Amino acid sequence: MSSRIDLGPQGFIYPMPMTLVGADLPSGPNFMPIAWVNRVQFNPPRLAAGMGKTHATNAGIREHGEFSACIPDESMLELTDWCGLNSALRGADKASQFEVFRGRLAHAPLVSECPLCLECTVHKVVDLGSHELFIGEIAGTWTEQRYLDDGGNPDIEKMRPFMLTMPDNRYWRVGAQIGRAWAAGRSYEPRP
Amino acid sequence: MSSRIDLGPQGFIYPMPMTLVGADLPSGPNFMPIAWVNRVQFNPPRLAAGMGKTHATNAGIREHGEFSACIPDESMLELTDWCGLNSALRGADKASQFEVFRGRLAHAPLVSECPLCLECTVHKVVDLGSHELFIGEIAGTWTEQRYLDDGGNPDIEKMRPFMLTMPDNRYWRVGAQIGRAWAAGRSYEPRP
Repeated sequence: MSSRIDLGPQGFIYPMPMTLVGADLPSGPNFMPIAWVNRVQFNPPRLAAGMGKTHATNAGIREHGEFSACIPDESMLELTDWCGLNSALRGADKASQFEVFRGRLAHAPLVSECPLCLECTVHKVVDLGSHELFIGEIAGTWTEQRYLDDGGNPDIEKMRPFMLTMPDNRYWRVGAQIGRAWAAGRSYEPRP
Repeated sequence: MSSRIDLGPQGFIYPMPMTLVGADLPSGPNFMPIAWVNRVQFNPPRLAAGMGKTHATNAGIREHGEFSACIPDESMLELTDWCGLNSALRGADKASQFEVFRGRLAHAPLVSECPLCLECTVHKVVDLGSHELFIGEIAGTWTEQRYLDDGGNPDIEKMRPFMLTMPDNRYWRVGAQIGRAWAAGRSYEPRP
């Protein structure tokens, strides 16, 4: 225990999944890389994304009550990062770098190049201070047959998403499959 | 576009980070594997975890207003999964399988075997229906020197956390580093 050290309150979860969050602005669709996103409920299916209030994307989500979370693949790493270095507030037309399509919702722009896109309506917005937490209800999950496994589920090895670590600010590939959830624990022998 | 298919509302984020969420119950400390967790704000530093209301852990968090999110490593995969197959509500003493320690908070039990542990006070609880979203304010980040890189930050290659995919319910290793965030995009050439 004596070797334990406290790094203070700026701790992160390891690793964080990279997404492109899409929203409609007055200037058109816009996309912003977000790693602070995850599912939060099974049914109704909801996710939550923490996003700094001053971003152009936040204003679009607030206006229309809809947004997307699209999962880019490794080949889109530079483009995804570029989307984070540029802002619609400074005139960047990020949508011009993608083929944008629509699913069930009018104002949740989706990225055709992304292997998986979730479109959401806003269930609730939680004001956190500098950030707001958008809790979205998932309305549709768009992919292509070539990204599915034999069971019809998205296959992460075919999708090749990537992850972020902070505060070292690195991107990481997904590695090997190492077990089955709600199953691997059956072989664990509790110590007395 | 014609090849796009809609899998419906049960879409997930790929991949999701595995944590052990700790809380104090009347019976003692308890730990539950949670993959639906992420940071949501930089300052004050906050994270959010979506957890089914009927879990024993939720009651402990509600009672004390404190909890932890500890990141297990690959060697703890079976034990972590076992924690999800068993419940304190059915008499399981999961804390007996770990060396439990305390940081700054009285009621955020931490796992000594985990390479990184975040301890949190509850900032807000959002009722989502079947689940509640615990928004925690990070009070401390516990690790050991051997898990840090040369810059003093946690090193994911030394920590060896693992991730979950749903609905296929598989665990995954972290793969190779493939880029630097807020940097890789500088070499992207926008198409006109």
